[in-house]
Amino acid sequence: MEKAIKSSGFVHHSTDVEGQLMDGGASIRWLITHRDGAENYSMRLITVEKGKSTPHHHHDYEHEIYIISGKVRVTLGDSTYIAKADDFIFIPPNVEHGMDAEEDTRMICVVPIKAAKMILGE
Amino acid sequence: MEKAIKSSGFVHHSTDVEGQLMDGGASIRWLITHRDGAENYSMRLITVEKGKSTPHHHHDYEHEIYIISGKVRVTLGDSTYIAKADDFIFIPPNVEHGMDAEEDTRMICVVPIKAAKMILGE
Repeated sequence: MEKAIKSSGFVHHSTDVEGQLMDGGASIRWLITHRDGAENYSMRLITVEKGKSTPHHHHDYEHEIYIISGKVRVTLGDSTYIAKADDFIFIPPNVEHGMDAEEDTRMICVVPIKAAKMILGE
Repeated sequence: MEKAIKSSGFVHHSTDVEGQLMDGGASIRWLITHRDGAENYSMRLITVEKGKSTPHHHHDYEHEIYIISGKVRVTLGDSTYIAKADDFIFIPPNVEHGMDAEEDTRMICVVPIKAAKMILGE
């Protein structure tokens, strides 16, 4: 039955997915992954409270991010930006990046499915 | 210079991207595509006013959707759901789908880059 439901897709609520703590204090919810049948990319919801951060790091895959609410200071390589609600961010592979929240912030962050498999396992 | 900026990514505002009208009356903004250097998937912002719709159709690629605000009736194959703010939706390839807005609604919708290239051209 579950398989039949998954094969035609689903509608779920974001808080039905358990959040996991990231380095820096942000929380991540893996909304859609290979475990749901996604083959190409994975959608996550990241929440960062004021004063906390997402990891400052780099890796060989890209991020596509949409800020739902809040305000963060974004580091991309040698540059710094302020991103607020309804801003979007493209972080190419291998670019050093991180975000420091100036207000409580919520964002969608999409990664290739290879990253989901690497981080979560198969 | 533009190339240098793109190579380390960017932060832009969603309304800086021009909206395009879709069948059914929804509006779509292609936020991040292959033209920005994205190689795997493309992030779009779709807005649907109350009483209007996204196209009811099917295609050989998937959608990963996050509802930012509003309320839509979602058709997935033979099933119908209500989706509201902070719900997310997975639509696998080849599943008939469409949305009818019961309130003004905004959503992020991610597609494989092959779909962006097919719809927008190279």
